[in-house]
Amino acid sequence: MGGDDAPRQIVEGAVYAARSVDSITCILVGDEAKVRAELARLVPVPKNIEIVHAPSFIDMGEVPVETLKKKRDASIIVAVELVKNGEADALVAAGNTGAVVAGTMLGLNMIEGVKRAGIAAPTPTLHGISYMIDVGANVNCKPDHLVQYGAMASTYMRLVSSVKEPKVGLLSVGKEGQKGNELVKEAHRLFEETSLNFVGNVEGTEIYNGDVDIIVCEGFVGNVILKSSEGYAENILSSLDNIVREKDPAGIYEGFRSKVIKELFHRFDYSTFGGAPLLGVNGVCIICHGRSNARAITNAITVARQCAEHRVTEHIRNEINLLDKATRVS
Amino acid sequence: MGGDDAPRQIVEGAVYAARSVDSITCILVGDEAKVRAELARLVPVPKNIEIVHAPSFIDMGEVPVETLKKKRDASIIVAVELVKNGEADALVAAGNTGAVVAGTMLGLNMIEGVKRAGIAAPTPTLHGISYMIDVGANVNCKPDHLVQYGAMASTYMRLVSSVKEPKVGLLSVGKEGQKGNELVKEAHRLFEETSLNFVGNVEGTEIYNGDVDIIVCEGFVGNVILKSSEGYAENILSSLDNIVREKDPAGIYEGFRSKVIKELFHRFDYSTFGGAPLLGVNGVCIICHGRSNARAITNAITVARQCAEHRVTEHIRNEINLLDKATRVS
Repeated sequence: MGGDDAPRQIVEGAVYAARSVDSITCILVGDEAKVRAELARLVPVPKNIEIVHAPSFIDMGEVPVETLKKKRDASIIVAVELVKNGEADALVAAGNTGAVVAGTMLGLNMIEGVKRAGIAAPTPTLHGISYMIDVGANVNCKPDHLVQYGAMASTYMRLVSSVKEPKVGLLSVGKEGQKGNELVKEAHRLFEETSLNFVGNVEGTEIYNGDVDIIVCEGFVGNVILKSSEGYAENILSSLDNIVREKDPAGIYEGFRSKVIKELFHRFDYSTFGGAPLLGVNGVCIICHGRSNARAITNAITVARQCAEHRVTEHIRNEINLLDKATRVS
Repeated sequence: MGGDDAPRQIVEGAVYAARSVDSITCILVGDEAKVRAELARLVPVPKNIEIVHAPSFIDMGEVPVETLKKKRDASIIVAVELVKNGEADALVAAGNTGAVVAGTMLGLNMIEGVKRAGIAAPTPTLHGISYMIDVGANVNCKPDHLVQYGAMASTYMRLVSSVKEPKVGLLSVGKEGQKGNELVKEAHRLFEETSLNFVGNVEGTEIYNGDVDIIVCEGFVGNVILKSSEGYAENILSSLDNIVREKDPAGIYEGFRSKVIKELFHRFDYSTFGGAPLLGVNGVCIICHGRSNARAITNAITVARQCAEHRVTEHIRNEINLLDKATRVS
């Protein structure tokens, strides 16, 4: 039920996913009447679509923890229960991120040894995709949380991508290890004790150039970077559109213009990348952008399926166990 | 002597500024032989260009505070001395930012009552220019530092721009005052006690949309945002270039393409905005991007002149004095 154009885009995305992969079942959790109304537009509905009714949901403006206690029949709570009981292998959600994070942590608990969950957001680079972790699950971050983020994202990337030795960079204000705030300096020291492929500090300019595969930062920083980049990209794209119109008032280049702009939007469209896994909770949870369209949801379901198939949760448990022994971070 | 293409771009920018405004004198501080060699390319050299010899300089990789103590004849130290002794009204520098900040603070001290200096970086928005403060002068920030940043940037903007009631936003991970980390929550509370035009929390997406004039954040966050936006913009612009080439291999649209891309680069070119004032130190200091070209330097000199003419330092002293009385922040 969550997301700017829900449940329409969610239902549509799930139907596409169910149609393209027979071996999965998509369980739509939400207001049954509304979900059925959307499904009616998408006939024939594939057989591997199911509905589980949840009468209420948590709105974008609501404070997660308070509301979660009151609305026990909210769609996010019901969906988390399905994962907890083994009736579902993964959860995909596009609603209030705070509610998804809190609901998942309360319902599924953390993986043994993990101190804080982190959202690993896929970001487009010149060479492919990198992951920035954390982008907002935890705003009161300690050095050992950052090291665990690096380890969890490495495990995830090794399993679901072709990158077998992901390069982990620590976001700071300068390349040298002694640059940064206290949080980052201590995390740098801890990272050096691990067997991760830690390449040292990276600066903001390096987030999108593809030199590293994983950018580790605290949730506050990751969140404002993700949103500011999105805002800046929108500025550039809308300026581009304006400039083309100014320079070509007669519309002579219209066909060319629309082809180029369409392709550019496509390359920088978050929906290509699907959702961001919430790593560290004891179960698969994929968080989608509030603006998710059907395509983004379909791609997020693919990410969820990969996480379940590759047993990401189990591998993270092992990795954290090894990390604890190596660094005595705990 | 600082900057990626120094002293060439610096000397050229200063000569342009001196030529266009008779009433100023540009004092070039650095290796006299190198400066003279650059000036030889720019004959006739205007009369309002002077040289002050400084035999050494601080390199980009050097740790500022340690080096500053050893290299007493470095260009930044000599330049700061000129401001301190009243022989110059303002300083413009494109070198190692840490060295410029530390050198200025050591040489000029802080304005009475100011706890930390902050760099106010001009950022392009859909409606003009806003300022993000701090982007890296201080990475160990407290709530009252953030409030002082808001007050200093408001004073600056009222004096040098047409915005008479600058809207001040506090960067956080959600609009509501209770969202964010402890630093931001406490700063939010303090801001509400001031007479500043405080509009509350803003999210990353709002940095570039022009809804607020001043975005207040801690130096670590501002620095990584500034650099990540720059990296992201470079990605988009280089992708645009690639896409146009792919879609138009024969170069039929070449003239149109180059006009559009040139204009787009121009609108998002940092050099249009000149330098960023370091607010809070007892004197005018304008910090330029390391990549500054001559145009950026000329524009930064204009910013420096405006700061001196409008007596920004004196007005900040009064503003901080009033702020202290209003909030008992000190």
